[in-house]
Amino acid sequence: MKIENPSPIQWHFAQRAEQLQSSFIREILKITQRPEVISFAGGLPSPATFPVEQMKAAFDQVLTLQGKVALQYGPTDGYGPLREWIANSLSTGGVKIMPEQVLMTSGSQQALDLLGKVLIDEGSRVLVETPSYLGALQAFSVYRPEFVSVDTDDDGLVPQSVATVAEGARMLYALPNFQNPTGRSLSIARRVELVETCARLGLPLIEDDPYGALSYRGAPAPKMLAMNPAGVIYMGSFSKVLTPGIRLGYVVAPLPLLRRLELAKQAADLHTAQLTQMVVYQVIKDGFLDTHIPTISALYGNQCQVMLDAMAEHFPASVSWTKPEGGMFIWVTLPKHIDSMKLLDEALAQHVAFVPGAPFYANAPESNTLRLSFVTVPPEKIREGIAKLGKLLATKV
Amino acid sequence: MKIENPSPIQWHFAQRAEQLQSSFIREILKITQRPEVISFAGGLPSPATFPVEQMKAAFDQVLTLQGKVALQYGPTDGYGPLREWIANSLSTGGVKIMPEQVLMTSGSQQALDLLGKVLIDEGSRVLVETPSYLGALQAFSVYRPEFVSVDTDDDGLVPQSVATVAEGARMLYALPNFQNPTGRSLSIARRVELVETCARLGLPLIEDDPYGALSYRGAPAPKMLAMNPAGVIYMGSFSKVLTPGIRLGYVVAPLPLLRRLELAKQAADLHTAQLTQMVVYQVIKDGFLDTHIPTISALYGNQCQVMLDAMAEHFPASVSWTKPEGGMFIWVTLPKHIDSMKLLDEALAQHVAFVPGAPFYANAPESNTLRLSFVTVPPEKIREGIAKLGKLLATKV
Repeated sequence: MKIENPSPIQWHFAQRAEQLQSSFIREILKITQRPEVISFAGGLPSPATFPVEQMKAAFDQVLTLQGKVALQYGPTDGYGPLREWIANSLSTGGVKIMPEQVLMTSGSQQALDLLGKVLIDEGSRVLVETPSYLGALQAFSVYRPEFVSVDTDDDGLVPQSVATVAEGARMLYALPNFQNPTGRSLSIARRVELVETCARLGLPLIEDDPYGALSYRGAPAPKMLAMNPAGVIYMGSFSKVLTPGIRLGYVVAPLPLLRRLELAKQAADLHTAQLTQMVVYQVIKDGFLDTHIPTISALYGNQCQVMLDAMAEHFPASVSWTKPEGGMFIWVTLPKHIDSMKLLDEALAQHVAFVPGAPFYANAPESNTLRLSFVTVPPEKIREGIAKLGKLLATKV
Repeated sequence: MKIENPSPIQWHFAQRAEQLQSSFIREILKITQRPEVISFAGGLPSPATFPVEQMKAAFDQVLTLQGKVALQYGPTDGYGPLREWIANSLSTGGVKIMPEQVLMTSGSQQALDLLGKVLIDEGSRVLVETPSYLGALQAFSVYRPEFVSVDTDDDGLVPQSVATVAEGARMLYALPNFQNPTGRSLSIARRVELVETCARLGLPLIEDDPYGALSYRGAPAPKMLAMNPAGVIYMGSFSKVLTPGIRLGYVVAPLPLLRRLELAKQAADLHTAQLTQMVVYQVIKDGFLDTHIPTISALYGNQCQVMLDAMAEHFPASVSWTKPEGGMFIWVTLPKHIDSMKLLDEALAQHVAFVPGAPFYANAPESNTLRLSFVTVPPEKIREGIAKLGKLLATKV
């Protein structure tokens, strides 16, 4: 039945398809997954924290009691009881978030794509931190914005610098808690100033918060959403507090925006798996996260300290780094003359991996930076890998 | 901590967000889900066909044996063994499809979105059948194409009409098997002619095939993919042969396109849930679909015949309809003067629902058409609902 001698297709792709680039991180992850490599490159949570038994029991229960519903098409906005749980969990300090403001997404990456789709025209200005989350830059860049970098210092994003670049901007995208890639958090004073600044400018503020719950020292910082629910768009995820492989996140937005996001989601994939949402609700509805999250924070906090101690012991004095109080990442700044992309080749030759910092910058990359993750590497391997990196750096400074 | 008197945001949405419209079908489904309504409006498969026990056993097994892997982030292209299974199932008649050509998606709706994202610039010509699948029109329209309708007759899409409108087109989108909304199928001769025409024109041909396996009479028709794998993009789904709520579909494409689709998917949601893919593979790998699909086809074929018989008995002579040999839908053409949108109001007053045909047309809607689905309604209710519709129509002709 095959036809004879078809002409090959001369593909004519959309202009936006020319923007598409593979995440540099996902590319190097392929190299670094070899067992002999001590990899600080990953952005993956530790599988040791996945509540496999609880998930298994919940799948069994949901399929037993509501199998036909769980396996049928579902509503675009998401599973009602889970949206209500999320709205309640975000309603603090006198602020009331309504379930209608919550849209369930296929991981919070999809929320980034939907926000880009609904808010960005070609050439629209989008304000981002310096550096920022690579996955967000990747998702937004499909819609061909002009990225504008907001100044940051050792304490994170500088709110005063926003007004100078906000003219005509469609949004400001920020990760206030244990930021990926730097591990930095915004102080409460800066959060208030940032929220006030954006409110004054009428600038939508995206608060991306996948790591906020993973604080090593007490309660998480107050959310910017709670400071101005009419102007802040909040993104959350179950990837870091439960498991990422189920692809479940959410976005909370003022209703005019949420309605557009919901329509964009309907066109993009109809809805996120009903079964997954019912199972997650079943796992968390009676307070499981209250006892589970502290075990994740304790594990990560311990491994973070092991890495920080090893860095203090082995890294040359001219190298500096952040001291995260939560989350999954440490950000390292090398002397200006060291290109971390070249350093990676030498490190890989010694079976140690990290992520070079340059891809995290929307503009003007600083090539003397790199990101380290400590969450999936056991303490003795952290010490061994950092010692090797330290020796390598000592030959460069 | 809430800030004082924030100014409300003057939302500035992207131009494409102005294109977003809720699916008319999803809107009327909200009305028609009341228990007293006999609804032929649904596009949902029958929950009676969902293999709940098999799914439950597979979730248990996958989580028991490979829980940590199943719950971790996974590759963007999908779960290897499942992609291999799909490639093998499509490798027939001397045509070899490689697993590398398969991209797993979050339902086949996502494949539509990704194809739009990668192939459509504003104003790009996209050829569609008349009428066509509403979800595809919705997904593509986000990217602001110019839809061009290809002629159809009682036997479906007319291949000769393609060349006259193909100039500069980015793709032709077709459902050759038991089309949604008409239930029509393309003859083998037309398939060959269509594939040859598109190959000669260098026009990418999208073969969307969610219903192909649901043939009431023997083996499914040959796939257009097999006639020219270098020029046909094939879309498949587990929604109609297993269960839709898990959101699992796939797209098979020549490598230059597949690579772009994969990058677009990475930006859109990183990957489709690993656990879901492993579970589906577990359920189907030993031939389950070979025995399961005939039970679905038998159920739907029986209910289709009940509906056709009832229509022959109750509908006026001036009304005509398709006689599907598979799938989920019958398409009805009323006398020109009857507007099915208005008819719906009167039908709903009598607790019978259907989907008016106009929204399925990209251009020049024919308002005297409507779609009926028979798959979720028991035979006695089909007879009752069709009798009521027939009486109502008798007052109009």
